Amino acid sequence: MLLTRPDSVRPEVEAFTPYTPGLSIDEIQERYGLNQVIKMASNENPLGASPLARAAIERHAAKAFRYPQGGNPRLVAALARHHGVDPARVVVGNGSDELIDLLIRTRAVPGRHNVAAFSPCFSIYALQSRFCGVELRQTRLKEDFAFDCNALLKLVDGETALVFVTTPDNPSGYSPPAAELKKLALALPAACLLVLDEAYMDFADDENAHSLLPELSAFPNIAIIRTFSKSFGLAGLRLGYALLPPRLADYLWRVRLPFSVNILAEEAGLAALSDSAFREESLRVVRQGRETLSRGLRGLGCQVWPSQANFIMFRPPAGSPAARDIFERLLRMGIIIRPLASYGLPDLLRVSMGTAEENRRFLDACTELLHAG
Amino acid sequence: MLLTRPDSVRPEVEAFTPYTPGLSIDEIQERYGLNQVIKMASNENPLGASPLARAAIERHAAKAFRYPQGGNPRLVAALARHHGVDPARVVVGNGSDELIDLLIRTRAVPGRHNVAAFSPCFSIYALQSRFCGVELRQTRLKEDFAFDCNALLKLVDGETALVFVTTPDNPSGYSPPAAELKKLALALPAACLLVLDEAYMDFADDENAHSLLPELSAFPNIAIIRTFSKSFGLAGLRLGYALLPPRLADYLWRVRLPFSVNILAEEAGLAALSDSAFREESLRVVRQGRETLSRGLRGLGCQVWPSQANFIMFRPPAGSPAARDIFERLLRMGIIIRPLASYGLPDLLRVSMGTAEENRRFLDACTELLHAG
Repeated sequence: MLLTRPDSVRPEVEAFTPYTPGLSIDEIQERYGLNQVIKMASNENPLGASPLARAAIERHAAKAFRYPQGGNPRLVAALARHHGVDPARVVVGNGSDELIDLLIRTRAVPGRHNVAAFSPCFSIYALQSRFCGVELRQTRLKEDFAFDCNALLKLVDGETALVFVTTPDNPSGYSPPAAELKKLALALPAACLLVLDEAYMDFADDENAHSLLPELSAFPNIAIIRTFSKSFGLAGLRLGYALLPPRLADYLWRVRLPFSVNILAEEAGLAALSDSAFREESLRVVRQGRETLSRGLRGLGCQVWPSQANFIMFRPPAGSPAARDIFERLLRMGIIIRPLASYGLPDLLRVSMGTAEENRRFLDACTELLHAG
Repeated sequence: MLLTRPDSVRPEVEAFTPYTPGLSIDEIQERYGLNQVIKMASNENPLGASPLARAAIERHAAKAFRYPQGGNPRLVAALARHHGVDPARVVVGNGSDELIDLLIRTRAVPGRHNVAAFSPCFSIYALQSRFCGVELRQTRLKEDFAFDCNALLKLVDGETALVFVTTPDNPSGYSPPAAELKKLALALPAACLLVLDEAYMDFADDENAHSLLPELSAFPNIAIIRTFSKSFGLAGLRLGYALLPPRLADYLWRVRLPFSVNILAEEAGLAALSDSAFREESLRVVRQGRETLSRGLRGLGCQVWPSQANFIMFRPPAGSPAARDIFERLLRMGIIIRPLASYGLPDLLRVSMGTAEENRRFLDACTELLHAG
């Protein structure tokens, strides 16, 4: 580990494969010379940003020259009220990504502690573990994408600092009953923190049947991560939050870069929290779209996994073009969805719920592609 | 290092003292029941945000629900054009803070490599080194706050991954001639990267006399960090950038969280880069304010250090109230400046350049405080 050049890097970084983001509308318009492109690839809000959040951004644009207030106290207070939790539990970050990174950095000693998750999982868990020099242990999801909590428990030992579980899961949309996660939390060693990444939880048909948030204070070893990127429609502003054991929350605030949440994210987040009409309409549109798309794709012979999220995962029928080809052909037709090769699932595709009109155009395109031969 | 509780943390984190931010206008208005408060504490732009950047924020507010485009290609291209450098050198981050953190994380092996800087220095160098488990070696600035590069070189060995130098320096405003930094770069071991943090460089009377940016491609071991927080007036949006050896830039892009720069920062940054009229007026107002405040404070018997930045450091005259008291009394009068105890300089104060009117009010208040007895 002698430094050999001014651009040499740590061994963990040398073979680093970066995150694969969804394609953007601009890229596809340019590549195929299309006027109109629909993006159903990144689990964004089909209705856009909340009107109150948009107005807040415009109203506060002139404040862009000021540093944000350290500790984001107004946003923390609003989130604590929104969820009925102690403000001492709340930490906000530059997207959930920053909070995942901080949890690993804060708890896990590199080369000593480990982190556990299912496979496949949200790639940021793996990327940040690797960047931190912390071992990631993984066990396969069941064949039907349900959680094999016993197999997960077998990975865990006295050096497991964190267990990451996404519920509803990405890309399957699966979400176990809350009781199953409760059992997992109780079975873990007392010093192991179970991190429930609930980015998509509010899209569930019955949130209380799946989330442990209402019982959070009864579990000293549970953390919950949520985001403003989905139902609040603020993916571009980068705003996530964690509800943590209070002592750990205090540590995260100390080590978090002091101004990591930008000033417009804070204002827009506050406005979005107050815009319950927009959020309810977003949930309604997503749940209805989930029904429409699931039924439509099944009608075309696709296998569709039951989803509690704002996307669904599906397998094209036998005899149809390969998943990769369907993805490419949809691109040419101006519809971006998500291939799942980067999740190790090359035969499957994921589509995010769009507006009713976007959903219809997607199903029409699929009908053309799958029934053409 | 056994994990003992679900909220236990790494030893480096246990005694972590967080960054001390400047006070906000809201906090002081509330604390002292004031209507009008002037903030000259955080080196923000006295003219606010660029009008073109404000318009860009308003125009793009509705895009807040979209994830940013991976790799920020438009912003990278614009920065490369602005500085006349290879786009392969440019990395953008969630403020310079993120880039400082990534440089340490990417290059320095915890417990093995070290980082060197002057003392006092920008506290983020120290905080992120500590958080990364990387030793920070420091040597005092000279009595007059000039750089003792020989002493800095003595700290450096074959395990020194990075040397951080802020120029112009904070809080003194000192900036050495470019030739001195060139000598330092050549004297360092070939594998040690010299990171020149030029957050305030464009406020210098003669930028080319102080910056190595024009000669960057001649030095394989120099990195330069700049920011949109100061002359571009976008502190609240969190946008910094680094000009790096291309191979290292590629690694930073791979490990950077994929969406760390928010979508409005990217749009506002592009607009601010194009708003040369605003930037030139900002530089004019800052340089003129620097003259006015330096002369005014010297006239009141203060020792004022020569500054090339958008702030000046000063020592109240003998027999006047202590620096801390002056700071507190100014607060009560509705003027926030920066005490320097957190830099280990309890006898000194730092004031950021304001508008002509704000500078006048600050000098009037100082006259009242310093000549009252």
